[in-house]
This record gives sequence, structure tokens and C-alpha cells, in this order.
Amino acid sequence: MRRDKEKIKIIPLGGLNEIGKNLTVIEYKDEIIVIDCGLKFPDEEMFGIDIVIPDIGYLIKNIDKVKGIFLTHGHEDHIGALPYVLKQLNVPVYGTKLTLGIVETKLKEHGLLSSVKLVRVKPKDIVKLNSISVEFIKTNHSIADSVAIAIHTPIGVILHTGDFKIDYTPIDGEVCDMARLAELGKKGVLAMLADSTNVERPGYTMSESTVGETFEKFFAKATGRIIVATFASNVHRIQQIITASEKFNRKIAISGRSIENIVTVATELGYIKFADESLISVDAINKYPPERITIITTGSQGEPMSALSRMASNEHKKVSIIEGDMVIISASPIPGNEKLISRVINQMFKNGADVIYEALADVHVSGHACQEELKLMHTLVKPKFFVPVHGEYRHLKQHSELAINLGLSPANVIIADNGEVIEVNRDGIRKNGTVASGNVFVDGLGVGDVGNIVLRDRKHLSQDGILTVVVTMEKESGNVIAGPDIISRGFVYVRESEDLMESARAVVKEALRNCEENHITDWATIKTNIKDMLRNFLYEKTKRKPMILPIIMEI
Amino acid sequence: MRRDKEKIKIIPLGGLNEIGKNLTVIEYKDEIIVIDCGLKFPDEEMFGIDIVIPDIGYLIKNIDKVKGIFLTHGHEDHIGALPYVLKQLNVPVYGTKLTLGIVETKLKEHGLLSSVKLVRVKPKDIVKLNSISVEFIKTNHSIADSVAIAIHTPIGVILHTGDFKIDYTPIDGEVCDMARLAELGKKGVLAMLADSTNVERPGYTMSESTVGETFEKFFAKATGRIIVATFASNVHRIQQIITASEKFNRKIAISGRSIENIVTVATELGYIKFADESLISVDAINKYPPERITIITTGSQGEPMSALSRMASNEHKKVSIIEGDMVIISASPIPGNEKLISRVINQMFKNGADVIYEALADVHVSGHACQEELKLMHTLVKPKFFVPVHGEYRHLKQHSELAINLGLSPANVIIADNGEVIEVNRDGIRKNGTVASGNVFVDGLGVGDVGNIVLRDRKHLSQDGILTVVVTMEKESGNVIAGPDIISRGFVYVRESEDLMESARAVVKEALRNCEENHITDWATIKTNIKDMLRNFLYEKTKRKPMILPIIMEI
Repeated sequence: MRRDKEKIKIIPLGGLNEIGKNLTVIEYKDEIIVIDCGLKFPDEEMFGIDIVIPDIGYLIKNIDKVKGIFLTHGHEDHIGALPYVLKQLNVPVYGTKLTLGIVETKLKEHGLLSSVKLVRVKPKDIVKLNSISVEFIKTNHSIADSVAIAIHTPIGVILHTGDFKIDYTPIDGEVCDMARLAELGKKGVLAMLADSTNVERPGYTMSESTVGETFEKFFAKATGRIIVATFASNVHRIQQIITASEKFNRKIAISGRSIENIVTVATELGYIKFADESLISVDAINKYPPERITIITTGSQGEPMSALSRMASNEHKKVSIIEGDMVIISASPIPGNEKLISRVINQMFKNGADVIYEALADVHVSGHACQEELKLMHTLVKPKFFVPVHGEYRHLKQHSELAINLGLSPANVIIADNGEVIEVNRDGIRKNGTVASGNVFVDGLGVGDVGNIVLRDRKHLSQDGILTVVVTMEKESGNVIAGPDIISRGFVYVRESEDLMESARAVVKEALRNCEENHITDWATIKTNIKDMLRNFLYEKTKRKPMILPIIMEI
Repeated sequence: MRRDKEKIKIIPLGGLNEIGKNLTVIEYKDEIIVIDCGLKFPDEEMFGIDIVIPDIGYLIKNIDKVKGIFLTHGHEDHIGALPYVLKQLNVPVYGTKLTLGIVETKLKEHGLLSSVKLVRVKPKDIVKLNSISVEFIKTNHSIADSVAIAIHTPIGVILHTGDFKIDYTPIDGEVCDMARLAELGKKGVLAMLADSTNVERPGYTMSESTVGETFEKFFAKATGRIIVATFASNVHRIQQIITASEKFNRKIAISGRSIENIVTVATELGYIKFADESLISVDAINKYPPERITIITTGSQGEPMSALSRMASNEHKKVSIIEGDMVIISASPIPGNEKLISRVINQMFKNGADVIYEALADVHVSGHACQEELKLMHTLVKPKFFVPVHGEYRHLKQHSELAINLGLSPANVIIADNGEVIEVNRDGIRKNGTVASGNVFVDGLGVGDVGNIVLRDRKHLSQDGILTVVVTMEKESGNVIAGPDIISRGFVYVRESEDLMESARAVVKEALRNCEENHITDWATIKTNIKDMLRNFLYEKTKRKPMILPIIMEI
């Protein structure tokens, strides 16, 4: 490292050692740009949490430097934290047309639209800041209008691929701009940050258009309604369902709030095209014979409140899955969702529908580059330094090995963690310290008011429930005036465990007697004694460890 | 249906519309035989539950008829409920050598070994009861000594395949007895019940011996210790790891209680063979250079308390995964376990180990028949009637379609649910009523004392925690003597939410005042008022719905 001004700092605040919550900070002298601002969905251990967003303490502390948030595409794991982050950090947001269209809907819901500056860009655009400039480069992904971002600085170019795949036959005809990537590579890219999601998969990700071929095959043989569930944001997929429907003379109804929003935005912006008479309201589906109806909906992950789940369980107001329906689940299960999806599939089969899903047919392709596409990207960009991003450690590790196998020196590859400061200049790349980073939990209206202690309590409560022990005692004498009463929730069927609860009360009485005999009058100690004796008693009797909450009321 | 005695009842009490908890009742006149007696691991919604076993109320009610429990193989989902069921239903248990070896270990742990009659059988054996007899037929599976079971009755043969695959090159050289299956088929099988687990997979399941070839490849290039995690019960897999270790001059240590137990049993019974000097204690591993050590362990599903997880996180007393180690996870993720496994893989990569798992190499094969093997079984057995078993509805449905595609009339195929009574005789098969069935939850020492209300409370507690509201009131006057006090757990950080909790107390006071003004003295009504007002207040402020537990102490 030479002088301070001659280095670029790369600080991932999310997206490393995890899937989701992508946010990368690029800092050069007194300028900071932020790439993406995503959320993550909670793990099963994060009880009651709605979403998880990155800790942006570092950006708040350096608020004067932050020039803007630059978005690669409109997926939740890249834009979902914006409504929360923008409340604390009101900076311009740059993105392509569809990306900003989706962001606008989101900001509107949060009442933020009027207060945020959105700057629409297109591929090949360059946003000039002070000493750095930001260029957008067309890529392919499972959402339209995705871009890579090149940050030009006086000491070199940093290329962030965003999420990408290389699709030679994309639905919109616009292939990833490999010419520009090659040009940058030829001039020299200082460092590349690249998507690692699919690094474990050999070969190539299939083109989005192959899914259209599968659709045609199934549409040709369907004799009743067709219901297709897919990701709301996959406008190319939705376009292919519409195209197949029109070809087979089917009207199309859209059901599900998020997908209705996106179809509206994408249609306005020209990303989805259909004949005016093709689209009908869900209310109108019964005016047509079943073989003339396609319904496009959400719920491909088996989410219990989604349109598809409700259609399957007859809880949807307007559509029930019935015999004769063909249901196509055009998505892969996100790890952790397998059982939920399975539940919905089982229910729909029971209802008599024909259900087509990934295990049975090629009704989905990934949006991420497999090994051969990653090799192509590395070979075009030829970065001097490489930082794998977007993945768990296993993915980052294997992506770093892929780069090394292509000829990069291990010293030129950095596997980092969120919050680590990566310093890079022409001579080298290294880690130098950390900044605050981590998970901020959103639970209802609360942002950050639930932390690890609360989560630990929720986990404990979920395992064996709680016993509340209440005693009213006289302040002066320490005499027990009322109780002890024990009320349990989530522990045992009280009616069938009366003996156990009676014995538990006797244990608490004994604890109180012990305290009295030993002249213990300090209430904290009395509570601890109650807790310890009761916990031991219950564990011995039931091998369970419910939470025990002793409360002493003083009068 | 003609006269009552001329029908066979088939009553699945577990294993249909679920994975696990397999138990099938076959009843002819006054004889009942039980096939398998398995457990199921809890869903993520079954908070705090350890295991799930079948409701055997029907067997208890007909205890005099029950002639025995006949086991197809020694997996937990086929034998795991035995210790609980045998306490209520002490009947002879029939099984092959290894199956009973594993059962013995289990019964010993539960102090039941001396009180249960275990009858060892071998393939081709026939156990004669009164009017029916039970035959065991060799199959292949991911555990040694698996069998199908044929029940010979005066009105026909019922064949239950158990879990099976067809392996032409099994490790023990004993191929599924297709000759006997074909012979039964030729004579005529009235009904078949067959494993549906892998019905969604086209083609054939690979032979167990292909995994050995993969092992050899990796063992040849490993330069440090090799740690292989696999299912404890897969003795053929363990044999292959031992064989490869001996070939490459490595000592073998076994780590993990369940796998140590099984290796002991399987070695005693002759299912696992090795040179005397090959096996060493885990304590002795440091006496040898790393390239001479193989450790076989459990934890292939990422279970947090398993040996592998503890080795990865440096919490194992004797082994830590370090740089230079090669770790092979020789198993598939069971759906739902993906994230746990991923966590362990990431940790081991971070420790510097080389980790080989299913996404990267063929280190595992399934134990269940794919479509072509299922077709072979159907074609050999040629049953008149067919009942798909062992699977969720989607599997049962697709297995029934497979049978119909092979020529069976749809009227001869029954998709049933647990508890449904299937009646079959020479003329037909039909459902006729139901018997009690369902999930019995085992939580600690409690069997069945946790039910849906308790689980609902645990779920509620896990989402938003609990607020306990305590008030001490005078019995006669209804005056508040102490409180209201509010204690919360799992709701918010109390220190950062003092205002909220203070306002909540004010709401409770207002509720109490309202009650007083309206002369409400009934405590149930007072509690309801507190609950309602507090719930509305909290939801408005936080959009959360914690459990609210009002307690009134009377003095």
C-alpha cells in the first residue's frame, strides 16, 4: 500500500457467507457508492422475524461521502432493504427502467416515493461523479433489465457482475454485452466481484427460451384450465406463459398482489406484451370454458399465504384448484422451502389436478451462471484481482478455486466476510480491518428492536413453553399472602397433567419455605431458588426444560 | 364382498401421505400381523417434539388378535417406534439378523430387552401362524438384511415390498430374490403394497458399489486425514469405507454413538469385515500420520449435536476438522436439512478442509427403487390389486399411475390414507371405513402429553413472545392491591422499549379502571378486557401479536 488516496476500499455489508441481503460499498477518497441494497428472508431460527436487512452503520457514519445507491436489478435480495435504508440515508438511487419501476411500487407502499430521487439509466450509460464514474453493462438474469456495474477510478476499474447468466437466446433478444466486458478486460480491470451462486454446477445454465418450449408441449395437451405459478419478478417467464396462452387461444388472468403489481409495471414499461383482449380479470374466468383459461399466479415456493396455496386449499376467494386443472410450478424450490412446496403439490394432486413441477419436467431454468459461464466471464474480464461475492463460504471458496485454476495467483484472490474492508490498488489487494455489519431484524413495525436475546427467548419458548410462577408477598415480613400460582403455556396439556402441576406447586412452596428458614429475603435470590428447584423437578419428571418465569408481587 | 371371513383388511397406520412412521396392519379373520413399527422426525411446525410415532389405538383394541410385528429392515422409520409400542403391545417381533441386532440395542437402551420376544428369521423363512403364514424375501436397500414380506392367506397372497431397490452388484453379493418374486407372481399375488419414495425419478438407482469406486478415486489423492460422514445404519457403505481405507493403508476410527453401536453389532453378526489391526480408537488417531487415518462418523444431515458438526465447530473432544483434512459427506440431504448441512460444509471449508459432497461427486446412492426398478417389481409380481405405500400423496399418485400404465385397471388401484380400512378379496378391493390413527408426539419422557393446543401455543410463543400481566386484587372489594406488573419474554428488548412497556401498563390500568366503572367483578371478564385492550394497543404500535397472559392474584 502506498499513499492513502491511492487505494480503493471494497466493503461488503451483505451477501457474503449468506444468500441475500446484497450490499457492497465501493469507496475511493471522499466518494462512496453503494451497489444494491437487498434484504434476506429469515432463517428458521429467526423466530417471528419478517425480513432481515443489512446494518448500514458505516454508511450513516460516512453519510457525506455517499453519492448514491446503484442497482444491478430488481430482485428483493438486491432492492428489498431500500425502504428501510432510504429512511436513514436519503441518497439518489440509480437503476434501469424495470428495476426502478419495481422500486417505485415499493417506495409508494412505504410512502417514500416523493422524497427519494430516482435516476433512470440504461446499459452503456456512464454516471460521472467527482473522481469516479459508474458504467452500466447489459447482462442476462431471471429478471429483465439486469446490469453489471463498472466503477472507473483513477487507479483502475472495479467490475461488479451483479447476478448474471449468459443467455444467447434471451426472450428480449438482448444478450449480455460481452463485447464491452472484453473491451474493459483488454484495457485492464483492476478487480472483479462476481456472482458465485451456481459455482457448484458444471456446464451452462439453459436459456430462458427452453422453458417456453416446455410450456408449448404442456399447453398443447392441456384440456382444462392451466395455472402457472412462478416468481412475480420473472417478466420473461410471464411473457412466455402469455405467448403460449395466446398461441393456444387462452385468455390470461393474473392473480396475486405482487405479480399483479409487476405485470402492471412491466406492461407499462414495455417489458410484457400481449393482445389487448388476451388479459382478463380473475373475476371473468368463469365466462370462458376451462380450456380457454390460463391463470398466472404466485406461490411457487409454497408460501402458506400465497395465491397458489390458497387456491389449493380452497381458501382463495375466486379460484380453487379442481379436477381437470393443469398446474405448472415454474420455479425451483429455494433451499428450506421443499416441505412447503410439497404440501401444496400434494393438496393439488388430491384435488384431482395434474401437477407439473421441476422433478418431472424442465419447467424452470436458473438465473445464475454455471461453471462454464463463470469461466467465460473471468476470461473476458481478465481481472488482476478477484473477490467472489453472493454466496455462502462453500460457493466463495469454489469460485476462488475456479479463478485460480484459470491462472490467477492465490494472492490475488480474496475471500472476505461482511464488514471486512478490502483495500486494493495497482500493487495488491489485502484485508485491512472491519467496520460494523450484520443482520438488522424487521419484525412488524420494529426495525432493529428484536435482537439475539429476544430470539433466544423465542426459541426457548418454542421448544418447551413457559411456566409462570406468581407469589404475592408482604413487603415488610416477607410472608406469602397469595399463591404460589403456576400458569403454563406450551408445556403440557394441563388437564391431563394436574398431578404434575400440583407437585410443581409443592416444589415452589418448598423453595419458599427453604428461603424463609434460611432467612433469605432478597427477592432476586428467592426467584433464583424457585427457578432452580422447579427446573430440576420438571427436568427429572419430564426431561423438558420450559422457561420458568417467577414473579413476586409485593404488597 | 361376500362373507366377512373371506376378506383381508389392510390398514395402514402410518407411512401414507408422509415420509416415515411406517406401520401397516394386515388382518384376516382373527389374526392381525403388523408390518414395521417406525417413527417419524418432527416437522418444523412441531416445536419441541423429539419424535413422532403412530397411534396404535386400533391394535390395543384388538390386542388378542395381534400375532406379531414383522420387520422389513432396521431403519428408524421402520423400527423406531418399537420401544414405545412394545410397552403397550408386548407381542413377538420377527426380523432378520441385522435388523434384530439393531432392535436389541434399542430395546436395551429402553430397558425392554428381557421382556420382549425377538424371533430371528432369514430370507425364504416362512412363519406359520394359524390360518396365515408370513414369508420373508430378500431385497436390496441402503441397509443390509432388508426383506419384502409375503403374507399367505387362504384367499390369496399380500406382498409388501418394504423399502427396496434392485442392486445387481450389492456389497454382500446377495441380489434381491427376483426368482421368488416371479414365482409368487406366476402363482398369483392378490395385492401388492410397494415403496413409492423414488417414483418421481426416471431410470435406475445406481448400485451401492459405484460409491466404492468414487471412494477409491478420492482416497487415492488424499494426502491428509479422511473423514467420511454417512448414515450410521448403512453398513455396506461403512464396509466400503473400510475396504478403501485398508487398500490405502489407513487405520480406521469410528466416532459417534449411533455408528459405534451399529458397527459393533454389524461386526459381531458378520456384516462388516476388517483386519483386526485396522480398527483403532479415536483416542489413538494422533499416533499415526494423518495420511494413515480414516475417521467414519455421523452427522451427514448437519444435525447440530452430531459428531461431524462438533468436529467442524471445534466442540468435539477428540477430533477437529483442520487444514489438510478431506471430508466426504456420503449422503443426500433429507428435505428440510439442506441449511443445516450447508452450515457444516461452510464451517469445514473455513477450517481449511477439502469437502466432497453430493453436489460435487457421486459419493452417495439412494436406497429406493426408481421408475424402471418399480416397473420391474410390478412386472415380476403382477398383482391383481395395488396399494402404493411409503410416500406423500404426490408419490402415491404417481406410483398408481405407473401401475395403471403397466396395464392395471384404475379400479384395482387404491390410494389410501393412514387409518383407512382397505378390504380386499378375490373379487375386488375397496375402502370401508376408518380406524383411529395419527401422530403421537414424544417430547422428553412424555408420550402423547403434548397435543395440538400445546403446539399451537409453542408456535404462538415462538412468533412474538409473551407478555405476562399480573395484578393482585382484594377478593371482597375488587380493589387493586399491587400491580399491574408486565413481564415480557421474546417480545422486544425491554431496555430499549421502556416507553412502550410503560404505555402498556397504562393501558392495563385503563382496562382495570373501565371494569371498575362498569362494576365488572367477574375475573374472567376482567382478564378478557385486559387481554383485548392490550392486544389492540400492541398491534397498533408494533404490528405484532404476542401471547398475553393476564393473571389475577386474589388476597
